[in-house]
Amino acid sequence: MNAVAQTSPATAPYRVADISLADWGRKEIDIAEHEMPGLMSIRRKYAAAQPLKGVRVTGSLHMTIQTAVLIETLKDVGADVRWASCNIFSTQDHAAAAIAATGTPVFAWKGETLEEYWDCTLDALTFTLPDGTLAGPQLVVDDGGDVTLLIHKGYELEQGDDSWVNSPSSSHEEQVIKDLLKRVAQERPGYWTRVVADWKGVSEETTTGVHRLYQLAEAGKLLVPAINVNDSVTKSKFDNLYGCRESLADGLKRAMDVMLAGKVAVVCGYGDVGKGSAHSLRAYGARVIVTEIDPICALQAAMEGFEVATVEDTLGKADIYVTTTGNRDIITLEHMQAMKDQAIVCNIGHFDNEIQVDRLNNSGAVRLNIKPQVDKYTFPSGNSIFLLAEGRLVNLGCATGHPSFVMSNSFSNQTLAQIDLWQNKDKYEKVVYRLPKKLDEEVARLHLEKIGVRLTKLTQAQADYLGVPVDGPFKPEHYRY
Amino acid sequence: MNAVAQTSPATAPYRVADISLADWGRKEIDIAEHEMPGLMSIRRKYAAAQPLKGVRVTGSLHMTIQTAVLIETLKDVGADVRWASCNIFSTQDHAAAAIAATGTPVFAWKGETLEEYWDCTLDALTFTLPDGTLAGPQLVVDDGGDVTLLIHKGYELEQGDDSWVNSPSSSHEEQVIKDLLKRVAQERPGYWTRVVADWKGVSEETTTGVHRLYQLAEAGKLLVPAINVNDSVTKSKFDNLYGCRESLADGLKRAMDVMLAGKVAVVCGYGDVGKGSAHSLRAYGARVIVTEIDPICALQAAMEGFEVATVEDTLGKADIYVTTTGNRDIITLEHMQAMKDQAIVCNIGHFDNEIQVDRLNNSGAVRLNIKPQVDKYTFPSGNSIFLLAEGRLVNLGCATGHPSFVMSNSFSNQTLAQIDLWQNKDKYEKVVYRLPKKLDEEVARLHLEKIGVRLTKLTQAQADYLGVPVDGPFKPEHYRY
Amino acid sequence: MNAVAQTSPATAPYRVADISLADWGRKEIDIAEHEMPGLMSIRRKYAAAQPLKGVRVTGSLHMTIQTAVLIETLKDVGADVRWASCNIFSTQDHAAAAIAATGTPVFAWKGETLEEYWDCTLDALTFTLPDGTLAGPQLVVDDGGDVTLLIHKGYELEQGDDSWVNSPSSSHEEQVIKDLLKRVAQERPGYWTRVVADWKGVSEETTTGVHRLYQLAEAGKLLVPAINVNDSVTKSKFDNLYGCRESLADGLKRAMDVMLAGKVAVVCGYGDVGKGSAHSLRAYGARVIVTEIDPICALQAAMEGFEVATVEDTLGKADIYVTTTGNRDIITLEHMQAMKDQAIVCNIGHFDNEIQVDRLNNSGAVRLNIKPQVDKYTFPSGNSIFLLAEGRLVNLGCATGHPSFVMSNSFSNQTLAQIDLWQNKDKYEKVVYRLPKKLDEEVARLHLEKIGVRLTKLTQAQADYLGVPVDGPFKPEHYRY
Amino acid sequence: MNAVAQTSPATAPYRVADISLADWGRKEIDIAEHEMPGLMSIRRKYAAAQPLKGVRVTGSLHMTIQTAVLIETLKDVGADVRWASCNIFSTQDHAAAAIAATGTPVFAWKGETLEEYWDCTLDALTFTLPDGTLAGPQLVVDDGGDVTLLIHKGYELEQGDDSWVNSPSSSHEEQVIKDLLKRVAQERPGYWTRVVADWKGVSEETTTGVHRLYQLAEAGKLLVPAINVNDSVTKSKFDNLYGCRESLADGLKRAMDVMLAGKVAVVCGYGDVGKGSAHSLRAYGARVIVTEIDPICALQAAMEGFEVATVEDTLGKADIYVTTTGNRDIITLEHMQAMKDQAIVCNIGHFDNEIQVDRLNNSGAVRLNIKPQVDKYTFPSGNSIFLLAEGRLVNLGCATGHPSFVMSNSFSNQTLAQIDLWQNKDKYEKVVYRLPKKLDEEVARLHLEKIGVRLTKLTQAQADYLGVPVDGPFKPEHYRY
Repeated sequence: MNAVAQTSPATAPYRVADISLADWGRKEIDIAEHEMPGLMSIRRKYAAAQPLKGVRVTGSLHMTIQTAVLIETLKDVGADVRWASCNIFSTQDHAAAAIAATGTPVFAWKGETLEEYWDCTLDALTFTLPDGTLAGPQLVVDDGGDVTLLIHKGYELEQGDDSWVNSPSSSHEEQVIKDLLKRVAQERPGYWTRVVADWKGVSEETTTGVHRLYQLAEAGKLLVPAINVNDSVTKSKFDNLYGCRESLADGLKRAMDVMLAGKVAVVCGYGDVGKGSAHSLRAYGARVIVTEIDPICALQAAMEGFEVATVEDTLGKADIYVTTTGNRDIITLEHMQAMKDQAIVCNIGHFDNEIQVDRLNNSGAVRLNIKPQVDKYTFPSGNSIFLLAEGRLVNLGCATGHPSFVMSNSFSNQTLAQIDLWQNKDKYEKVVYRLPKKLDEEVARLHLEKIGVRLTKLTQAQADYLGVPVDGPFKPEHYRY
Repeated sequence: MNAVAQTSPATAPYRVADISLADWGRKEIDIAEHEMPGLMSIRRKYAAAQPLKGVRVTGSLHMTIQTAVLIETLKDVGADVRWASCNIFSTQDHAAAAIAATGTPVFAWKGETLEEYWDCTLDALTFTLPDGTLAGPQLVVDDGGDVTLLIHKGYELEQGDDSWVNSPSSSHEEQVIKDLLKRVAQERPGYWTRVVADWKGVSEETTTGVHRLYQLAEAGKLLVPAINVNDSVTKSKFDNLYGCRESLADGLKRAMDVMLAGKVAVVCGYGDVGKGSAHSLRAYGARVIVTEIDPICALQAAMEGFEVATVEDTLGKADIYVTTTGNRDIITLEHMQAMKDQAIVCNIGHFDNEIQVDRLNNSGAVRLNIKPQVDKYTFPSGNSIFLLAEGRLVNLGCATGHPSFVMSNSFSNQTLAQIDLWQNKDKYEKVVYRLPKKLDEEVARLHLEKIGVRLTKLTQAQADYLGVPVDGPFKPEHYRY
Repeated sequence: MNAVAQTSPATAPYRVADISLADWGRKEIDIAEHEMPGLMSIRRKYAAAQPLKGVRVTGSLHMTIQTAVLIETLKDVGADVRWASCNIFSTQDHAAAAIAATGTPVFAWKGETLEEYWDCTLDALTFTLPDGTLAGPQLVVDDGGDVTLLIHKGYELEQGDDSWVNSPSSSHEEQVIKDLLKRVAQERPGYWTRVVADWKGVSEETTTGVHRLYQLAEAGKLLVPAINVNDSVTKSKFDNLYGCRESLADGLKRAMDVMLAGKVAVVCGYGDVGKGSAHSLRAYGARVIVTEIDPICALQAAMEGFEVATVEDTLGKADIYVTTTGNRDIITLEHMQAMKDQAIVCNIGHFDNEIQVDRLNNSGAVRLNIKPQVDKYTFPSGNSIFLLAEGRLVNLGCATGHPSFVMSNSFSNQTLAQIDLWQNKDKYEKVVYRLPKKLDEEVARLHLEKIGVRLTKLTQAQADYLGVPVDGPFKPEHYRY
Repeated sequence: MNAVAQTSPATAPYRVADISLADWGRKEIDIAEHEMPGLMSIRRKYAAAQPLKGVRVTGSLHMTIQTAVLIETLKDVGADVRWASCNIFSTQDHAAAAIAATGTPVFAWKGETLEEYWDCTLDALTFTLPDGTLAGPQLVVDDGGDVTLLIHKGYELEQGDDSWVNSPSSSHEEQVIKDLLKRVAQERPGYWTRVVADWKGVSEETTTGVHRLYQLAEAGKLLVPAINVNDSVTKSKFDNLYGCRESLADGLKRAMDVMLAGKVAVVCGYGDVGKGSAHSLRAYGARVIVTEIDPICALQAAMEGFEVATVEDTLGKADIYVTTTGNRDIITLEHMQAMKDQAIVCNIGHFDNEIQVDRLNNSGAVRLNIKPQVDKYTFPSGNSIFLLAEGRLVNLGCATGHPSFVMSNSFSNQTLAQIDLWQNKDKYEKVVYRLPKKLDEEVARLHLEKIGVRLTKLTQAQADYLGVPVDGPFKPEHYRY
C-alpha cells in the first residue's frame, strides 16, 4: 500500500504521495486553523514585523495537518521553509499535498522506506541560494533530533573523524544514515561544514531529542544554541499528557476496532505519556496495570489506583501492551512469546526500539499483514500477537496523531523558540535553553478564549502578598504544575 | 465517493462494493471471532442439534465485521440466510465482501442511496425455493424495524388497504418505500400474503424498533410473535451504554480529528446511549451538558455531576452536539443557525430525524463536503457547522460501530431469540416477548471467561436465604441493574 | 459509651439519650430542610388537605436528622406519629432529642442493647387512645421489616401457632424477639389481634424488607396491603447508589482515618449499593476488586474496569472489605483469619450477618475496642483485623448515614406511599404494590430546581412520535434507567 | 466546647486538653504506625547511629496522630523534642495526650485562643539545660513558618530594630505576636540572641512558609540554613494533591453532612491542593467550577473538563466554595453577601485570610454556632452562609487532616531534612536548600511495599541508553512528574 512518491518539477520541488489530495488537505487545514488559536494569534502579532524574514528554516516533524498550520505560520512570519517528516508512517498525505501545492518544498509520504526517509531529510536540508549554490538551513525545527544528528555526524566526518561512519551498525537504520553520509561526502564535499557555518539554532520538542542535546552540550560538541521546547509546561504537560490521552485510543481503535472495556492493559512507564495513556484506557473501562522503574512515578500510579507490576507479572493475563518510556527493550521477544493469545502490542513512547521488533521479525514468527500498520505474528506455539505501526508511534502510524488544539500549544512554543533563537543569534551560547516562563504562560493564555476560560486577575495587593507581578510569571522555576 | 455496487452472477447473488476485499474482511472476521465468545460458544453448543436447520432467515442489520460473525453463527446452527444493512452508511465493505464470498447472499455497501437501500431490503426478503418460486423468510432479524415495516405495509396493501401507500409522504424515504411497494404489487402480486403465511417470528434489537412492535401488538396488527431483544439486560445495558461509550468518540475522531478536552459538548438525552456518550466525552476532558425531558434521567445526570440545561441554553457556547434520544427534531434548523461557529453536530440515537437535516439542506446554507460523511454547512451569517454522517448514526457512518465484544452480547441474544422463536413457533402468540432472565444471565456468563472474571458461587444456605436457585436466575423481573 | 436513655414523663413519653441536645438537633434539622426539597414541597402541597389527619403512624427507621424531617412531614400532613430506630447504632441522639422535644414520642438512642431495641419497637407500636386503651398503628413506615415481623409473629402466636416462638433460636436477637412476644402475650392478651384489625398498610424501603413482604404475600400470609418503596427508581437508583457513594467513605474515614488511595479494596456484591461503593473507593485512588454471584452484574463490573474475583482470591492482598449483598456469610471467620494484617472489614449491605460476627466473637480472637464502633480483633497468628460497627451498617454506625438530599427522594416516596395506602385502604388487596411511575417521576421533579436543573419539555409532535403524554410518564415499566 | 488545658507538673511539663485520652491516642498511634512505613523504616535504619542524639528540636506542626509518629521517630533517632501545634483548631487531643504521657513536652489543644497559641509556641521554644538555664532549639521543624517568624522577629528586636513591634497591626493575631515579643523582651532579655546562636537549621513543609524563607534569603536576612521540604516531589505532589483529595470531603462531611452530588462547587485555585480538591468533588458528582489567575493552571483545569470562571461569575449559582490558593482575599465579604442562600464556604489553602473572615465578623451578619467549627452567618438580606473552621484549614479543623499514609511521605522528608541539616551544619550556607532527588526517590521507595507495588529494575544497557544510574536518580531536576 506504500505510496509512490511523485517527484515535483525542478521549479517547485517536492515529493508527496498524491498532489491531487491538496484540496482535501486544504479543507482540513482550514478546520485545524480554527482549533489552533495560538498559532493564528502569533501570525497576527508578527505579521508586520516579519521576525524570520528570509530565514532558511528546515523542519523535520510529522507532516500532518497540524504541522501544515505550523509551516504556514513560520512562512507568515517571514521564513523560507523546507520540510520532511520525522517518522516513516506519520505523514498525512493530503496535508503534505496541500503544502506542496502552495510551493513550499515538502518531502514526505506515509509509508516511506528508511532509505527514502533519510533522502527526504537531506532534501529538506538542501536549499538553493539565488546564486544557485546549495545551502543548509539557518534554523532547524526538530522532532526527535534526526536533523541535528545528521548535521553533527556529517560535520564530524568532514572534520576528519570517520570512526562512527565506518563502525559496525547496530540497526538497519543506522547503516542507512552512514551510507547517506558517505554519499554526500562524495557528491557534496565540504557541504556540512558550510551548513554549520550558517546554522544559528535548533528547537527540539521531544524528550528523547532533548536528552541528546543535553548530552551533546555536556560533551562540548553541540554546534549551535538549542531551545528545549519539550520542557515548556505548555508542551510536556499538555501534548504528552492530554495529546496521548486522546490519540492512543484513536490509534488502537482505527487499527483494531477492539473493545477496551473489560480488557487488561499494561502501560509501560508512567511519565506524562504514560499518565495520559493509562487514564485514557481506564476511562474506557480497561483494567490498567502500570510498570515503572522510578519509585516516585510508581507511587503516583498507585495513588491513582493503578496496579503497579512488572511486565513479567502480566504475561498471559493482559490483552494490550503500550510502551511509553523513551527507553529500549521494554517489550522483549520473550515477553511477546509468553503473551496471551492475540494480545495487542504498540508503542507511543518514541522509537520503535521500545519493542524488540527486529528480534521479532527474525524469530521465526509468521507475519500476516491485516491492513497497513497492523500485523499479526504467529509463534510456533500457535499463539499470536498483533503489532501496530511496526512498533513506531501508534497514534501517528494508525491514526492522525494528536489533535490540533493541543498541538497548537506545542507549535506555538516551537514558533516562539524559532523567533527567539534568531533574535538572540549573536548572544546565545552553544548550550540548551528553555523558553522563559513568561512565554510559557503566554502560550497558555493564547488558548484560553477559544475554550471559554475566564481568568481571574490579581489585585495589586494580592500580587504584593505573593511577591509576583500582577501579570505573572506566577510560579517559581521549580514549580511542577 | 459512493461505491458502485457489483452485482453478482445469478448463481451466487449478492451486491457488494468490491468483492476483492473479501480476504481482508476474512482476516478481520477471524480477529472478531476471538472477541465474540458468546457467539462462538453458541456455535459449539448447537453445532450438533442444528436448531435452525433449513430455516430461511432474513437479516436487516448493519453489515459489519461483527454482523458477519452473527451471520456465520446463524448459518452454523443451520439457517439459510440472506442479509441487507439497516443503514445506508453502516456497511463495512470488506465485511460484506467476505460474507458474499462464502456464497451467502448479501446486499449492502457503504453509501447506498435510499432507493438502493430499499431494493437491497427487498432482495434480502426474496428467497428462491428449490422449485424456483420466490419466498420470504421464516424468521427475521431486525434492527430498527425496516423489514417488519415493509412486510406489514405490503401485507396491508394486499389486504386492500391502500390508504397509506397513496397518502402524501412526510419525507423522501417514506415515498421511496411506497414506490417500492407499488412496484412489488405489480411485479409480484400476492407476494406479501405468501410471505406472511410462512413467517414465524421476528427478533428486534433497537429501542425504536421495539417501540413500533409494542404499538403494533397493542393495535392487534402484529402479524407474528416478536422477541424484544433490546430489553435484555445484556443488550440495552451493554450495547447501548458501553458500546456508545467506545464508538461515539471513535466516530468523532475519525470524522473530525478534533480535540475533545476543553470542549463544551451537549448530549441530548440521558438514556443508556446518552449515559455512555456523556461519560465518554467527560473522560476525554470535555465539559458535558445534558438535555432531558424525563425528570428521573435528568436527576441521574445531575447526580453524576453533569449540568442539565436545554439546547437553547447552550447555543453559542457549545462546540459539539450529540443526539441520543430516539425522538425527532431534537436539533432544529434554528438551533444550528444559532450555534457557535464550527460547532459539530451528530446523532448516535437512531434515525436521522433527531436532527432537522432536511430543513438544513433546504435552508440556503452552503454545503461543502470535506470527506465522506463529513459536511460543512455555512449559513448566511458566515457561521458554519459540521454535520456528520448526514445525521445518521455517527459511530456507524464515521467509524465502524460498536466493538466486537459488546456486540457479541447483543448478537448472542439475537441468536438465542431466533432459536427460541423457531422452537416455540407453534406456541407463541402474536405479541412481544422478552427472553427469560435465565437466558439473559447465560449470555453474560458466556462472556466472563474471555475477560478473566471469576464468579462467586452461592452456597445452598445462601441461596435459600435469598430464596433463589443456586444457579440463578438471581433477580426479580423488575430489577434494574 | 452507651447512653443511658432518659425516660420521659407520662404526658410526653419518649426515650432518648440526652434531651438537652434538642437545640443542636433543631439547628441541624433546619439545615436539612433546605436540602430536602421533596419533603418540603409535599408539606406545602398537602398542608390544607391533611390527607393523614389523625392517622396513627408507627415508624421504624434510623432516627437521624433526615428522618426527623420525614417525621415532621408526616405530622404536617396530619399524622399521629410514634417512632423507633431500626438499628441499634444508627440513631443521632441530637435528632432524637429534637423530635422528642416537640412532643412526638420517639424511642431511640445510639448504642441500644438488643433488648432495649425491641422494647423501643414495642413502645413505638403502642398508642394510647383517648379512652385510655392501648392501640397499634393504622399505618407503618418500615425499614428492614422489623415492625412488620413483630406484628405478624405476634398475631401468629395469638392465632394459636406457637411453633416459632418455642423453637430454638439461631441467634441472640431471635431469642430476644421471642421473649418479648411471650411477655406481651402475658401483659397484653389479644393485643396483636386488635393491632391487626386497625392496621391498613405498610410501606417498606429496603431490598431485604421488600423481599420478605413478597415472600409473605406469595405464602398468602401478608396481613395488610404493602407498598414497595425500595423499587421506586427514585429510591433504589438514588439512595442505594448515590447515597452509598457518599456515605461509605464517610464511615470509613470517621472510623479509621485511613488513606484510601493505593489500597486494595474488595467490594462484595455489585448491585446498586455495591456500584456506589466501588465507584467511590476507586475515585479515592483505591484499587477495587468486586465479587459477584450474578454473571450480569459481574460483567457490568468488568466493563467498568473492575477486577472480578472471589473473596478467597484476595486474601492476603486486600486492605479493605465491604459487604453490600443483602446475603449472609459473605465474609466468613476463615476469611478474616486469612486476611492481611490490619485489614478493615465492614458492611453496608443490610444485616450484620453478611459478616460472621458471631463466629468471630466466639473464635478466641482478642477484641480491643479502639473507640465506639471500631474494634480490633487479634488472632492467635498475631494478625489483626478491624471490624467496624460490629458488622452493622458502617455508614450509619460510624458516620451519619446518607446525606439529606438523597434521603429526600427516598422519604418523599415513603410519604407519598403512606398517603396512597390510606387513600386506597378500602381498595387495595393484601399484596405488594409499587408506586406508579407518574409519582416516581414527580419525586424526581421535586428535586430538580434545588440543584439548578433545567428540564426540556416535549412538543406535542414529539410526544406523539414517542407515543407518550407530554408530561409523562415517559418510559415503559420495564425501563431500567 | 474549648478544652481547658491541663498544665503539667514541673517535672514533666505539658499543656494538653485531657491527659486521660492518652490510652485512646496510643491505640490510634499504633494503627498509624502501620500506615507510615517511611517513618518506621527510618527508625530502623537510624536506630543504631542516632544521628540526632541529644539535639534539641522544636516542632510547630499540627499535633495529630500522624505527627505523634513523626515526634516519636525524631526521638527514636536521638532528638530531644518539644512540640506545639501550628493551628488553633488542628490538634487531636488524644494524640497530644499520648505524647505528653510519654514525657515529651507538648503544648497543644483543639480550640486554643490566639494568645494561648503563641504562648504554646514560646513554650515549645523553651528548653531547660542541665544547668537550669533556658535555651532554644538547635533545629526547628516548621509548618507555616510561625516559629521561624517568631525567632526572626525576636532577634530583630534584640538587635535594636523595634519598628515592626511598634507599628500598627493589620490583624488581631499580629498584635498578639508583638505583645508576646515585648513580654519576652522584659522577662528574658537577650533570649532570642542566645537562641539564634545555637540554632542550626529549619525544615519547612508548606508553600507559604517556603515562600517566606526564600524572601528572607533573598533579603539576606535568613538566620540559618533551611530545607524546603514542600518541594520534594514526595511532599507537594502527594500530600498537597492526594492528601487533599481525601481530606477535603472528609472535612465537609463531618462539618455539614451535605450531599455533594448535584451541587455546584467552586474551587479557587488549581495548584496541587486545588487539583486534589476539584477532582475529589467531581468524583462525588459535584459540578466543579475552577477559578485561576495563572493561564497555565487554568488551561490544565479546562483540559480536565472543568469550567474556569471567576468567583463573580458563580455567585448565586454555586453551593460550595473552597479556597486553595495561598493568597489573600479570595472570597470577599461582598462575595459572601451575594452567594446563594446557605452556601458553604471553607478554606484548605493555608491561612484564614483567604476568606475575609474579619470583615465578615464585623459586617453585621448574625452568627449562629451550629457546632464546633461550624457557624451560620445570616445577612440582613435574609440569606445565610456557613463558614467552616472559622476560615482556617477545613480538613484539620473539621476532620483529622490528611491520612497517615500520605503524611508518612511528608514526614519522612522532614526527618531526612532534619538529619541532613544536622550533618551539614558546618557546611551549609544560610540559604534555602532542597533535598537531593536521590532522597526524594528513597522516600517514595519506602512506601511501595506496603501497597504492593512491584518496581521494574533497569538493565545496565537500558540505564546506559538513558544515561542514568541503574538505581537512579532517574530524572533531570526540571522534571515535573
